[in-house]
Amino acid sequence: MQIICNKSDLLNSINIALRAVSTKTTLPILECVVIDATNGMIKLISNDQELGIETIVKGTIVEPGAIAIEAKLFADIIRKFPDSDVTFTSDENFMTLIQCEKSKFNLMGRSHEDFPMLPKVEMNQSIKISDYSLKEVIRQTIFSVSDNESNKIMTGELFEISGDTFKVVSLDGHRISIRKIQLHDSYDNIRVIVPGKTLNEIAKILSGEMDKIVNIYFTDKHILFSFDDTTVLSRLIEGEYYKIEQMLSANYETKVTVNNKELLNCIDRASLMIKDVDKNPIILNFENENLELKTNSTVGSMKEDLDIIKSGKDILIGFNPKFLMDALRVIDDETVDIYLFNPKAPCFIKDKDETYIYLILPINFNVA
Amino acid sequence: MQIICNKSDLLNSINIALRAVSTKTTLPILECVVIDATNGMIKLISNDQELGIETIVKGTIVEPGAIAIEAKLFADIIRKFPDSDVTFTSDENFMTLIQCEKSKFNLMGRSHEDFPMLPKVEMNQSIKISDYSLKEVIRQTIFSVSDNESNKIMTGELFEISGDTFKVVSLDGHRISIRKIQLHDSYDNIRVIVPGKTLNEIAKILSGEMDKIVNIYFTDKHILFSFDDTTVLSRLIEGEYYKIEQMLSANYETKVTVNNKELLNCIDRASLMIKDVDKNPIILNFENENLELKTNSTVGSMKEDLDIIKSGKDILIGFNPKFLMDALRVIDDETVDIYLFNPKAPCFIKDKDETYIYLILPINFNVA
Repeated sequence: MQIICNKSDLLNSINIALRAVSTKTTLPILECVVIDATNGMIKLISNDQELGIETIVKGTIVEPGAIAIEAKLFADIIRKFPDSDVTFTSDENFMTLIQCEKSKFNLMGRSHEDFPMLPKVEMNQSIKISDYSLKEVIRQTIFSVSDNESNKIMTGELFEISGDTFKVVSLDGHRISIRKIQLHDSYDNIRVIVPGKTLNEIAKILSGEMDKIVNIYFTDKHILFSFDDTTVLSRLIEGEYYKIEQMLSANYETKVTVNNKELLNCIDRASLMIKDVDKNPIILNFENENLELKTNSTVGSMKEDLDIIKSGKDILIGFNPKFLMDALRVIDDETVDIYLFNPKAPCFIKDKDETYIYLILPINFNVA
Repeated sequence: MQIICNKSDLLNSINIALRAVSTKTTLPILECVVIDATNGMIKLISNDQELGIETIVKGTIVEPGAIAIEAKLFADIIRKFPDSDVTFTSDENFMTLIQCEKSKFNLMGRSHEDFPMLPKVEMNQSIKISDYSLKEVIRQTIFSVSDNESNKIMTGELFEISGDTFKVVSLDGHRISIRKIQLHDSYDNIRVIVPGKTLNEIAKILSGEMDKIVNIYFTDKHILFSFDDTTVLSRLIEGEYYKIEQMLSANYETKVTVNNKELLNCIDRASLMIKDVDKNPIILNFENENLELKTNSTVGSMKEDLDIIKSGKDILIGFNPKFLMDALRVIDDETVDIYLFNPKAPCFIKDKDETYIYLILPINFNVA
């Protein structure tokens, strides 16, 4: 085969394909990317057997063919080339010549037939969402996905479509993050669990542009994202997701409105004093129009006051500062509403329309 | 004691002082910075027993005194404060209150008397050099300092002043880097070995501004850098530096002129193919008006041609690509001159006036 591509086009595509290349694997073929120029276009294909990516590169096919080549090395070579045309040639023995201006690399490729090709999936059920919204909703929920593989379902996010509402949920046993997005069109109900790893990689590939559309296709076992010249295919996590509705109580004894940025910075400072969060959580004392935030550890102690608007009872409650910060950081509103029940019940940070709900469990502490 | 400083002034000074704070030490007091407000000004002092820093912070002394406080935690607290005045108060039991707007931190300090104060040094012999030149000359030589502590002298750089010439030399057994700077004034002869670690830290503190002056003071055992409101004191390395003059031969069989950037990029690409540099060095074949650069390993092979201007014999010679790149990267000239003798003798990259000389030993290889 022989193809000619522009260096920067090729580099963009390889960088996308690299997201599904295995780095720790006992199967060397999974460290490869397939360059497939058999069907009138040039495709890069990668597959770590959880996630698969196909992306089309602009270029000229001089002689059709396909080959597998070590992905990271290939990417490094292209990256270091001058900004010019790259000619890629391989023969029937998989000897590969990559040439740019006066620079010539010879590498040993492998047969693309040894590479696990992506399964063909039925593209029946699908939704459309903007690139921006998808990238945002992942950022706003991915932090509370569990990384504990012993509970597989917690390592994924629930994608739930009903009518024109797209709901995304993640939880890790200490907190729940929920985001709702209004879609342009209405769809049949869908409820699947998407691996957190897939969403992390997708978020890195998405450009975040408002006016670009991503098509998401669903099958029993797979989810497929299609945008620009790229297709990302992932397995779904099998099983039933948690029934979160019963954890979301509308009751509260205390409602507090506070400046988001001020609260975030204050908790960030307080977290400097915390060595062991279970022994020394951050303590929030909501009293009248004042929030006193304090923490106490072997390192030292910290105290800070914030102005709040409060309705309902005073309350003293302890939290892991990281969990509060993770939620506050992804809320764009200038002020946030916090709903509290008692020092042992979860707090809710949510807006009026419940486009976001962040539930966080408190930590018990000894009143000093 | 009580002092009041602006947050950003305080942060700048702590960031400087942090450069001489021990991170791995069995003496907890060395993880501290001393805040000394006993002599009408506010000084931050740090000392890891190799390197010592004193820097003055602008601010108001409400009540004189001194205290030692954990440096990293102190810096983190100041960094996370809003941009406002910081009030620092400590009592006779070393209880310390750090306050900024509504935020209050309580930390346990330590007696400044437990801290190893910097030795007083005689400030007799000194030179003046611009901040820019000092920062540059360190960058242009520091990479060939050895990190092998078993040969202490190689871990330092030679600072040699004779008349108005300031010469800096580093070597690691495989290469020598030499830079010469013309000073504004003339001085008595000085020849000392400065620890590479000291120079790395100094380079990070220096601003690199052309019109700022650094005073360097020399004693038998110490070197002291004085600039802005900061003083950096370091031990010297004891012993005799290598006599490098006898390694610098003016004889050559081949002189080559080549575009610096092109050569650098070409070697950078070639280095992708190298797994074990002693078995597979980069091979340079200087032939007529052409340099063929090639390398060959289990990964694959690479070949590239460059235009050169050559006088003298053709030559085939192997190198560690990193050593060539380290030197080429810090040369600002558009073209460089390379002087070669034979495939077993070092090459020299130097300019006509010898303001820089980079000597690099070749690597033997089997001609394939």
